[in-house]
Amino acid sequence: MREEILKLIEEQKLNDLRKYLESINSADFPSLFEELEEDKILIIYRILPKEKAADIFAELEPDVQEKLINCLTDKELKSVIDELFFDDEVDLIEEMPSNVVKRILKNVKPEDRKVINELLAYPEDTAGTIMTTEFIDLKENMTVEDAFKKIRKIGLDKETVYTCYVLTIDRKIIGVVDVKDLLVAEPTALVKDIMNPNVITISTLDDQEEVAKMFDKYNFLAMPVVDKEQRLVGIVTIDDAIDVLQEEIQEDFEKMAAVIPNDESYFKTSVFKHARNRIVWLILLMLTSIITGGILNNYESAFVSLPILVSFVPLLMDTGGNCGSQTSTLVIRGFSQDEIRLKDFFKVWWKEIRVALLVGTCLAIVNTLRIFIQYGFDQSKLALVVGLTLILVVVLAKSLGCILPMLAKRLKLDPAIMASPLITTVVDTCSVLVYFQLAVLIFGL
Amino acid sequence: MREEILKLIEEQKLNDLRKYLESINSADFPSLFEELEEDKILIIYRILPKEKAADIFAELEPDVQEKLINCLTDKELKSVIDELFFDDEVDLIEEMPSNVVKRILKNVKPEDRKVINELLAYPEDTAGTIMTTEFIDLKENMTVEDAFKKIRKIGLDKETVYTCYVLTIDRKIIGVVDVKDLLVAEPTALVKDIMNPNVITISTLDDQEEVAKMFDKYNFLAMPVVDKEQRLVGIVTIDDAIDVLQEEIQEDFEKMAAVIPNDESYFKTSVFKHARNRIVWLILLMLTSIITGGILNNYESAFVSLPILVSFVPLLMDTGGNCGSQTSTLVIRGFSQDEIRLKDFFKVWWKEIRVALLVGTCLAIVNTLRIFIQYGFDQSKLALVVGLTLILVVVLAKSLGCILPMLAKRLKLDPAIMASPLITTVVDTCSVLVYFQLAVLIFGL
Repeated sequence: MREEILKLIEEQKLNDLRKYLESINSADFPSLFEELEEDKILIIYRILPKEKAADIFAELEPDVQEKLINCLTDKELKSVIDELFFDDEVDLIEEMPSNVVKRILKNVKPEDRKVINELLAYPEDTAGTIMTTEFIDLKENMTVEDAFKKIRKIGLDKETVYTCYVLTIDRKIIGVVDVKDLLVAEPTALVKDIMNPNVITISTLDDQEEVAKMFDKYNFLAMPVVDKEQRLVGIVTIDDAIDVLQEEIQEDFEKMAAVIPNDESYFKTSVFKHARNRIVWLILLMLTSIITGGILNNYESAFVSLPILVSFVPLLMDTGGNCGSQTSTLVIRGFSQDEIRLKDFFKVWWKEIRVALLVGTCLAIVNTLRIFIQYGFDQSKLALVVGLTLILVVVLAKSLGCILPMLAKRLKLDPAIMASPLITTVVDTCSVLVYFQLAVLIFGL
Repeated sequence: MREEILKLIEEQKLNDLRKYLESINSADFPSLFEELEEDKILIIYRILPKEKAADIFAELEPDVQEKLINCLTDKELKSVIDELFFDDEVDLIEEMPSNVVKRILKNVKPEDRKVINELLAYPEDTAGTIMTTEFIDLKENMTVEDAFKKIRKIGLDKETVYTCYVLTIDRKIIGVVDVKDLLVAEPTALVKDIMNPNVITISTLDDQEEVAKMFDKYNFLAMPVVDKEQRLVGIVTIDDAIDVLQEEIQEDFEKMAAVIPNDESYFKTSVFKHARNRIVWLILLMLTSIITGGILNNYESAFVSLPILVSFVPLLMDTGGNCGSQTSTLVIRGFSQDEIRLKDFFKVWWKEIRVALLVGTCLAIVNTLRIFIQYGFDQSKLALVVGLTLILVVVLAKSLGCILPMLAKRLKLDPAIMASPLITTVVDTCSVLVYFQLAVLIFGL
C-alpha cells in the first residue's frame, strides 16, 4: 500500500491517487500514516473527501493528530472539526496540549462550543464522557413516512441512525424504534404504534464499564443516555462500547500483573514511565516478602541441622503462588462477567476447598514418589513433612485466592488488585511458616 | 421481577402476565429462568410470542435449553427451531446430548438440514462456525426501491438487515451497501451506483479471533464470509463477534494463570473438572522448581556457614517472578492487540533492559537501606550481594518475560502459555544460582 501511494505522489498522479485512496478502508489509514512522513500525510489528507478525512482523523493516535493539526491551515482545521462527531471532538480536546486546544476551540462553531464544554464536564469513566449528542429523535404522533424524512434530513452515521428515540415535548424519552421496524411498517402508521415503550436507559454518571457490559448483554447498537429528569441527552454507540470493553480488559490485565494501568500503547510509553508504572507494586511486594525472610531466619537452627529442608522452599513457594493465582484469576474474572457475586462467597470457598484437597493430594503423591526415587525410602519423614505442607499450602492458597478478591469487592475496591502477585507474597509467608513448623514437630528439631 | 411473575401465575392472570412479560427485555430472561422451577418456565415460555421465545431460547444456558426441550411437545419444538437463526441452531446441536439432537433434527425442515450439516462441518474456532447463512443479497441493477422491497420481504434481524451484499448471478460478492446509504438515495437510483465495491471479506476458515478483531478495527455491524471462489456463503454479525472476543479474552486470562481453558462457567464446572484443569500445569511447574531446589542443595555449605543468606531467597524469588510477569503480560497483550509484532523483538528487548536497569537499581537501593537499618553497616557485603543479585535478576526476568512469549509466537504457539507461572519458575532457578554464586565469590565461602 505504502509503495503504491509513494509512487503515485512522486509521479504527481493525483487523480489516480484519489481513486486509490478511495479503495482503502478508513480503518487502515492510521497504520499507513505511521509509516509515512508528515508532508506525504498532508498530501493524502488534503486529497481525501471531507467526511472520510474526518473519519480517519478520529481514529489517529493523538501524536499523529497533533502533528497533522499543526500542518493544517485554520480553514482546513475548521472543516475537519465540523465533520467530527461531538464525542470525537471531546476526545481530541482532552488529548491535545493547551496551545492546540486553543486553536481547535477557536475553529469550533459557537453553538457547538457549549455542547463540548458540557461533555468535558462529565467525570472520567462515566457514560457522559463516551456519549455523543447526535442522534435521531422522533415524536410519537409522527407517521413512518415523517420519520424517514427526518432520518434522511439528519443523516449521521450508521450506529447513530439505526436506533431512533421517541421524545415528548420536554425531551423525556418514551420509546425506542429500530429503523428495521420502520422499514417493515406501513408508511401511514404512527410511530407510537411501532415503538417499544420499554426503553432501557443509562444515566450520564453510570460507569462506562457497566455500560459496555449492557451492550454485550442486550445486543444493542446504541443506548440512550438520560439525565436525572429522564431527559435524553445523548447516546452511546456500540463501537465506543467495544473500545471501552477493550480498554477495561487491558487495565485488568495490567493490574493483575502488578503494573499501574496506562492509557498509552507500549511503544508510546517512555522507559521512565514504564519503570514508574512498575516500581510501586514491586517495592511494596518486596517489602512484604521481607516477612517471609524473617520467618526463615527464625528457623535458622532447623535448617542448619537439616539443610535439605531448604531445597524444598522454592517448590512450596511456587506451588502456593500458582494455586493462588489460578483461583484469584477465576474469581476476579467471574466478578467482571457477573458470574460470581458477593453472596456466592461460601459457595465459591467450599468449591475451592474441595478442588484444593484434590489438587493438593495429587501434588503430594507425585512429590512423595519423587522423594523416594531421588533419596530412597529413608526419607519418609521428609516426604511426610513436604506432602502435608503441600496439601495445607494449596488449601490456604486457594482460600486466599477466593477470600482476598471477595474482600476487595466488599470494600468496593477493584478485585483485580488482589491478583497473583499479592496473593503469591502472602501465601509465601504462610507456607514457609507451616513448612518449618511441621518440620520442627515431625523431626523433633 | 420473579415475585411479580409467580403472583400472576398463581392468580391465573395470564393476560396480565403476557403484558408484563412483554415489558421485559429478552436478555433478562435467562437469569430470570435460573431462579424459577421448570413448570413455571414452561408456562412463561408458552405465553411468549413465537419470535421473542426463539430469541430467549438462543440466549439460554445449554442445561436450561435441554430441560426446556424435554418439556416441549414436538410441535412446540418445531416452532422454536423454525424461528432460530442457523448459527443458533448449530450452537444448539453442538451442545445437546445425542438423544436431544435426534429430536431436534427430526423437527428441522428438510431443506434446512442440509445447511446445518454444512455449518457443522467447519473446523472449530473458524469463521464458518460463527456465521449465519441468513442475509440480504441484492443485484447490482436493482433500484433502491427494489432493494427496500427485498429487505421488507426477507425481514430478518437488526444486525443481519442493515448491511446488504451485492452479488453477481453466480453469487460472487461485488459490493456492499448500508441501509443508511439506501435511505438517503433516490428511490430510482441503481444499487451499483451506491454500493461500495471495496468489500472486506473473511474466509470460512479464518480464525474466529482474527475475525472478531476486524470488527473492532473496522466498526462493521456485519462482515461477509466467502468461500475459495469468492462466493458469499454467510455473514458474521457484530453480536457474535463480541461474544468471540469475550471468550478469547477469558481463555487468555485462564491460560496466563496456568489453568486449562474451559468453556463452561465457574459454577457449572464440577470440582473434579476444576481440579483436572489446574493440576496439569501445577505438576509441570512443581517438577520444574525441583531444579531450583537442587541448586540450593549445591550451596548447602554456603548457607550453613552463613544462614542469613537463606532469608533473602523469598525476596529474590518473588521480585524476579513479579518483574517477569509484568513484562510477559505487557508483551502477550501487545501481541493480541497487534501493537507488538515479531519484528519488534529487539526494540522491545532493549526497552525492557533499560526499564529493568532503572527498576532494579531502585529496588537495590531500597533493599540496601533496609539492610543497613535492620542489621547495621557491618552487613555491607550482604547488601552488595543482594543488591547486585536484584539488578541482575530484574534484568533477567524482564528479558525472559520478553523473549519467551516472542519465542512462543515464533514457533506459532500461543504466547499466553509463557505467562507469569512459567516465567516465575524459570527466573527462580536463575536467581538462586546467581545469588549464591555471587555470595560465594564476595564472601569467599
